[in-house]
Amino acid sequence: MAKVKLGELAAKLEAELAGELEAGELEVGGLGSLAQAGPEDVSFLHQAAHREAAAKSRAAALIVPRQLRELALSFGRPLLVVGHSQLAVAKALAVFHPPHQGPRGVHPTAILPPGTTLGSGISIGPYVVVGEGCILGDGVQIEAHAVIGRFCRLGDEVRLHAGVVLYDGVELGDRVEIHSGSVIGSDGFGYASVRGVHHKIPQVGRVVLEDDVEVGACTTIDRAALDETRIGAGTKIDNQVQVGHNVTTGKGCILCGQVGIAGSARIGDHVVMAGGAGMSGHIELGDRVQVAAASVVLQSVEADQKVAGVPAGSIQDWRRQVTALPRLSELLRRVRKLEKALAGREPREEAEGES
Amino acid sequence: MAKVKLGELAAKLEAELAGELEAGELEVGGLGSLAQAGPEDVSFLHQAAHREAAAKSRAAALIVPRQLRELALSFGRPLLVVGHSQLAVAKALAVFHPPHQGPRGVHPTAILPPGTTLGSGISIGPYVVVGEGCILGDGVQIEAHAVIGRFCRLGDEVRLHAGVVLYDGVELGDRVEIHSGSVIGSDGFGYASVRGVHHKIPQVGRVVLEDDVEVGACTTIDRAALDETRIGAGTKIDNQVQVGHNVTTGKGCILCGQVGIAGSARIGDHVVMAGGAGMSGHIELGDRVQVAAASVVLQSVEADQKVAGVPAGSIQDWRRQVTALPRLSELLRRVRKLEKALAGREPREEAEGES
Amino acid sequence: MAKVKLGELAAKLEAELAGELEAGELEVGGLGSLAQAGPEDVSFLHQAAHREAAAKSRAAALIVPRQLRELALSFGRPLLVVGHSQLAVAKALAVFHPPHQGPRGVHPTAILPPGTTLGSGISIGPYVVVGEGCILGDGVQIEAHAVIGRFCRLGDEVRLHAGVVLYDGVELGDRVEIHSGSVIGSDGFGYASVRGVHHKIPQVGRVVLEDDVEVGACTTIDRAALDETRIGAGTKIDNQVQVGHNVTTGKGCILCGQVGIAGSARIGDHVVMAGGAGMSGHIELGDRVQVAAASVVLQSVEADQKVAGVPAGSIQDWRRQVTALPRLSELLRRVRKLEKALAGREPREEAEGES
Repeated sequence: MAKVKLGELAAKLEAELAGELEAGELEVGGLGSLAQAGPEDVSFLHQAAHREAAAKSRAAALIVPRQLRELALSFGRPLLVVGHSQLAVAKALAVFHPPHQGPRGVHPTAILPPGTTLGSGISIGPYVVVGEGCILGDGVQIEAHAVIGRFCRLGDEVRLHAGVVLYDGVELGDRVEIHSGSVIGSDGFGYASVRGVHHKIPQVGRVVLEDDVEVGACTTIDRAALDETRIGAGTKIDNQVQVGHNVTTGKGCILCGQVGIAGSARIGDHVVMAGGAGMSGHIELGDRVQVAAASVVLQSVEADQKVAGVPAGSIQDWRRQVTALPRLSELLRRVRKLEKALAGREPREEAEGES
Repeated sequence: MAKVKLGELAAKLEAELAGELEAGELEVGGLGSLAQAGPEDVSFLHQAAHREAAAKSRAAALIVPRQLRELALSFGRPLLVVGHSQLAVAKALAVFHPPHQGPRGVHPTAILPPGTTLGSGISIGPYVVVGEGCILGDGVQIEAHAVIGRFCRLGDEVRLHAGVVLYDGVELGDRVEIHSGSVIGSDGFGYASVRGVHHKIPQVGRVVLEDDVEVGACTTIDRAALDETRIGAGTKIDNQVQVGHNVTTGKGCILCGQVGIAGSARIGDHVVMAGGAGMSGHIELGDRVQVAAASVVLQSVEADQKVAGVPAGSIQDWRRQVTALPRLSELLRRVRKLEKALAGREPREEAEGES
Repeated sequence: MAKVKLGELAAKLEAELAGELEAGELEVGGLGSLAQAGPEDVSFLHQAAHREAAAKSRAAALIVPRQLRELALSFGRPLLVVGHSQLAVAKALAVFHPPHQGPRGVHPTAILPPGTTLGSGISIGPYVVVGEGCILGDGVQIEAHAVIGRFCRLGDEVRLHAGVVLYDGVELGDRVEIHSGSVIGSDGFGYASVRGVHHKIPQVGRVVLEDDVEVGACTTIDRAALDETRIGAGTKIDNQVQVGHNVTTGKGCILCGQVGIAGSARIGDHVVMAGGAGMSGHIELGDRVQVAAASVVLQSVEADQKVAGVPAGSIQDWRRQVTALPRLSELLRRVRKLEKALAGREPREEAEGES
């Protein structure tokens, strides 16, 4: 971790340096949580609720959002006042921990066919295997043991972590990052079943991940049967997510861990699927739909809805159900009581049995 | 993609060429959906519902099932009339996109111990590592970085994609195909727990995948504790499926993405588990059972049942519950109203509180 | 499998040899289930319920717990009487199937930077890649194709199976075992989202797996954003488990297949999460909490509770709900009937519609 002057850090974060005039010359060497930061670290306060921890923190300086400026001045510590404190923390972390850059060039054990098109400033690690006809953009970084199929196209600044597998014909936009264990472009799950025998339908479409997509570890994105599977620009995908063939997502979606999306589902822009959520094939989520954790969507959902449950309905309905459900067995008893009360004063009618 | 005469294609699909007598000489070069097919492509119509798209399609010819023959003749385009149009599409795709065949032979970087038994026409890619005592059948194709344990036996035409791992003693039937990131034969999850300490029970059984099994990407199939884990012939397994130790499946099952099957579960023939479905250990699914998406089976199910829900019950019951559930909070209100109405005319009795 | 005298086996299991005085000289060569064991194998009887299978078994001898001693003597076969029969089976399996030990030393194709610290008796397989600054303890065994990032620290007797990936800075205690396809230390899923653009928050914390942790295949454990992700000593994790950034678990936990744990969750000692269970981030499970299969915990749970359902509540409540749920549509009918009965004798009041 490199040391940096607080004034320089403020400039990089586009922050106002407040609280101590001479603090700009202070040297800081890292960023930590309020509890963990040492006297040479910067920390951050996102919400007023954590003010006590902030007052007690040993941090040399604090990143705070504009609305906490006055509150934070009372801590008697230099402040980096910013518009969006989480974004500033992200930037500060990148200052203290620049991403590791593998050695430039191609490791002698990597196998690249003669016709491979290589951009400038690439880094290809040990035992990487690249198929024929691939095009790799500038600044591409491929770590040990990654395997790239034939006729793949990787944009500038793409980063593949160790052991990633791309099947043939995968196309990655600029700045796509894929974590270890993920497999992009494997065959979709399609069979023509005739009298109990499942005949494979060759999966001959492709996969496109647009610019700035990040894919976590052990995630699988299948190639299309025909046409393409497409992940929109800026979409972020967590670990162990399964994306079926011919799925398309819009821009800026968030797919959390263990999400599953069945074939030919269509997802709009800025959709969020929380952890473990699922979605049937051949249906559509409109823009900005939010699916709660562990919910399963079986029917298309219009834009801007929040849904929850299995099958997923509106989140308000789901909350009501979840509140009412624990009263269900009590309700059974109460209805039985009502039936008896009524039966006592009526021409006798057999109540439906309750074993 | 190779070009092929429509007459030849018809012969390969065992199709009747209908609609234009001289069409057999027409050359076609690919297969696309109704919307995507160009004037040199074949397309297909599986259902009358898509007739308008078929009429508008630019495709040179259409694959249609027998029952749509008359309807499709009205499009004024040559037809390939078949008994099962999805199967014909699968065959046509295989004509236009024959599976890529890696170079014959053993890549110089692959590591095979001296005693390895190799069939004819094999292809073993870069950096493949094979353990001692393995037997590989004719036409086996192993892609880059796959690792095969000791004493494995691979049938004819087995295909392992890049990075597959087989532990020791795995047995694969003919034509088994396993996609990247999958691990076959890892230890089952078994411990003898004594006062909070979990002592590993060595997992010394094996895994057998019978003929024509296909396994998707990042799927795990554990070896048995003792005896064996066995996947029946023709069973197809999607991505990210977890199969516990000592599980057995029958023939021709379909296990969709993210299915989880706990240890010692027994599954009959032609069982279908939809995406994200799960199943407890030590229970049984009869032949042809169908488990709905995201359902979890906690008790054995007899043959031919369709089940859904958590815990899974009959799909009819589940549909009824799912319809009734959104009315539960309304029902609470109605029962309270009834209680009040009755209480007004009865010797006072305290209704159970409803906060 | 080596042959061993029954008397020696008894000594290794700390078992009383009962039933036949001269049986100690008997040679046995393996261990099988009651049904599968041959006349040279040992088998085991854990519960009286399996007494018939035990009587019929061809096994040469039986491992039985003390409380079944008298019952088992009636089988007329030598017995190995122990305090904990499952633990004895685990030990016996280790006698008959000692874990395979890779060849000592470093395979010539493995890539280790000059400064790597290596303990004694290590085994590093083909194509293993190790980053700079790593410290590997005594008896470490790393199988083919594993990739170890920079500045990792592996305790004594650590075993990494083929293809495991450790990112930079991962710390593994003694006797940690990780199965193929697992990825430890990949980036947590954290973004600062500003007007629909998700800016990556660099994940600069680390991952620590304490002593005796075992991790199954295709499991992912993310590095912390700051600080650390920590898995407590003796915790066992199955296949396809996802552990988010900054999660901590206590000692001796059991996380079954496909469990998902969101970021910053805190888990006590000896917690059990059954297959497919999930847990929100930033909440806590107390010591010895048990979460039922496929349940999702959305709120903190106190020590010693058993929870089930989505969202998870007490397992008793869940059982009551699950029993009552199938009666919900019947209940709707009964309430309608009550309303009609009452309406017939009241000043008319419109019942709420039921379409």
